[in-house]
Amino acid sequence: MTADEKMMRRAIELARTAAGWTNPNPLVGAVIVKDGRVIGEGCHERYGDLHAERNALASCTESPQGATMYVTLEPCSHTGKQPPCADALVEAGIARVVVGSRDPNPLVSGRGIARLRAAGIQVEEDFLRQECDGINPVFFHFITTKTPYVVAKWAMTADGKIATATRDARWVSCEASRADTHELRHRLAGIMVGVNTVLADDPMLNARRGVPSNQPLRIVCDSSLRIPLDSALVRSATEVPVLVACACNIDQGERLDKAIRLRAAGVDVVSLPGADGKVDLAALMAHLGESGVDSVLVEGGGTLHANMFKSGLVDEVVVYLAPKVCGGTSAPTPVGGAGAALMADALQLGKPQVDIVGDDVRLTYRLNRGI
Amino acid sequence: MTADEKMMRRAIELARTAAGWTNPNPLVGAVIVKDGRVIGEGCHERYGDLHAERNALASCTESPQGATMYVTLEPCSHTGKQPPCADALVEAGIARVVVGSRDPNPLVSGRGIARLRAAGIQVEEDFLRQECDGINPVFFHFITTKTPYVVAKWAMTADGKIATATRDARWVSCEASRADTHELRHRLAGIMVGVNTVLADDPMLNARRGVPSNQPLRIVCDSSLRIPLDSALVRSATEVPVLVACACNIDQGERLDKAIRLRAAGVDVVSLPGADGKVDLAALMAHLGESGVDSVLVEGGGTLHANMFKSGLVDEVVVYLAPKVCGGTSAPTPVGGAGAALMADALQLGKPQVDIVGDDVRLTYRLNRGI
Repeated sequence: MTADEKMMRRAIELARTAAGWTNPNPLVGAVIVKDGRVIGEGCHERYGDLHAERNALASCTESPQGATMYVTLEPCSHTGKQPPCADALVEAGIARVVVGSRDPNPLVSGRGIARLRAAGIQVEEDFLRQECDGINPVFFHFITTKTPYVVAKWAMTADGKIATATRDARWVSCEASRADTHELRHRLAGIMVGVNTVLADDPMLNARRGVPSNQPLRIVCDSSLRIPLDSALVRSATEVPVLVACACNIDQGERLDKAIRLRAAGVDVVSLPGADGKVDLAALMAHLGESGVDSVLVEGGGTLHANMFKSGLVDEVVVYLAPKVCGGTSAPTPVGGAGAALMADALQLGKPQVDIVGDDVRLTYRLNRGI
Repeated sequence: MTADEKMMRRAIELARTAAGWTNPNPLVGAVIVKDGRVIGEGCHERYGDLHAERNALASCTESPQGATMYVTLEPCSHTGKQPPCADALVEAGIARVVVGSRDPNPLVSGRGIARLRAAGIQVEEDFLRQECDGINPVFFHFITTKTPYVVAKWAMTADGKIATATRDARWVSCEASRADTHELRHRLAGIMVGVNTVLADDPMLNARRGVPSNQPLRIVCDSSLRIPLDSALVRSATEVPVLVACACNIDQGERLDKAIRLRAAGVDVVSLPGADGKVDLAALMAHLGESGVDSVLVEGGGTLHANMFKSGLVDEVVVYLAPKVCGGTSAPTPVGGAGAALMADALQLGKPQVDIVGDDVRLTYRLNRGI
């Protein structure tokens, strides 16, 4: 590994430490090196806070004059919540900048680098770009599509069941996988289930990691507004936000009453009817995107998964495969609906990333839908 | 890696080259080394032929007097199809023997080694024993239980389907996985399906590898003797043996006629009724064991898999997981039947071996049932 590679990998490592806290901003890490020594480093720690470059500069143990900065994403050239980072680098007297990812926003891409070069700074682009891009699938997707990056997740047995024939599902996956799911919930801005899951399991849908966690917006897809007022979700809506998307008329009658009661409990209720009388999932994703929700974890059940796939809205599939044989002709599986008529019409996913998580095998399939 | 390790790994490699040809004998490899040079090597190539040790001795390019032999399994001390290998080693003047696996037959285990030591040969036991044992799960199982080592195999989509809701299954897994299945068929002595699979797919159930293959005994589990006389299996029964196991009375009436016709076509028919009126699968395995069938690949369908698991007869599960989402509430899954009532009652398999096969992920779970 060259010295440049080593430093950029450290910057990537730093970027990842803030996962879950920066959405809808990207994860970014920066390392400042002088005479072969790291004199400063930092990351973008939390949405609204200082960018990685400024944190790295602020941490310098000696003057960064003449130093090299390794940064996982092109320094910004525009004033957002923070003034442009490119200017800060120029002011600090940085001599060389090694950049990983390009800014995916076509309006500003390349401007930060141009600004650095105009100030006489030597810039190397696309360094470990693939690795750096890999930190931010959510950000890259959201900035270009304005809709959330959608991860469909399920845990199933080695024979494809998500519960027994009698609908018992405690537990399919091992403790380590369940902890991993809470990590996923922390990293993504929203978590969505179908109302049948609420009726069956009365889940909290929060991120429980044992350490402070970002709590995702909890979204229920509920065409007929059947969510119980005494469900754990509704009862906790003033603490962690809940959005219920229905497909019915909530401006009059019984459903108006229900919507009023839900709103009084702190629940956000939207009606987004589709042509089939169900929730228009594409409209829901657009609505979420407008609200700044850059990512959604869909945790089933099978009907919601089927409709999300049918609508072409899934960007990534995460499967926890448990070393168990459950059996049962009528035991439920991860994706329901009518399904493909021919196997050749099944949705093709491509090669997964395979990881061992406790006793389970985790498979991550990326669909590269939006970008 | 030490020189001893390197030589034993070469012996393991040699042993594996004969996979599929030695059943119900073990796979064994041997390497002879003198002054650091390999002067001979060999394996047990085919059932009834010379043992590995004798093949290695026969291949020597110079006198094996004073040489070291690395052999993956304890040399035999008894006269079977071949005279005792231990004697051959003594006669050849081998000075040192490094042994991997112990002979699993309690009647002879240790005798070969004692014979070598009695002749003044230096013997090292249990060298890379785990790796050497790993070559012969079938042999170790069969020699101790007298019943076949059973591998349950299925290919399913990432959402747990083995076919679409309309029962289309061409193809779930990729070409490389299908080729891998033919390799499995070649390596195991029998292949078994339920009669519904015969009625639905009319399969040949032979090993098609593009190179000469061992053809497994084709076994159909067919309680009511419904297998069609014009099925591909029955029509080819004189070329590759077919065994049909039923649970009905074949000594009179209509079923007698059917049995006579099947036998006339070259099919072996046995009736092994269990308490539930279905084929007694444990009795069928015992019957196969008595016939020298040391291993069976069970390729479904879901009902047969369910009954094999229920009867506790499965030793290994091989899952090909295809990167596809099929969907379908009524699409079939790998294991049917009633299934476990509670997820806690599902059969626990333990950590799998994970391999990438083409676009698919292959998971191999060993149950360590019999040994």
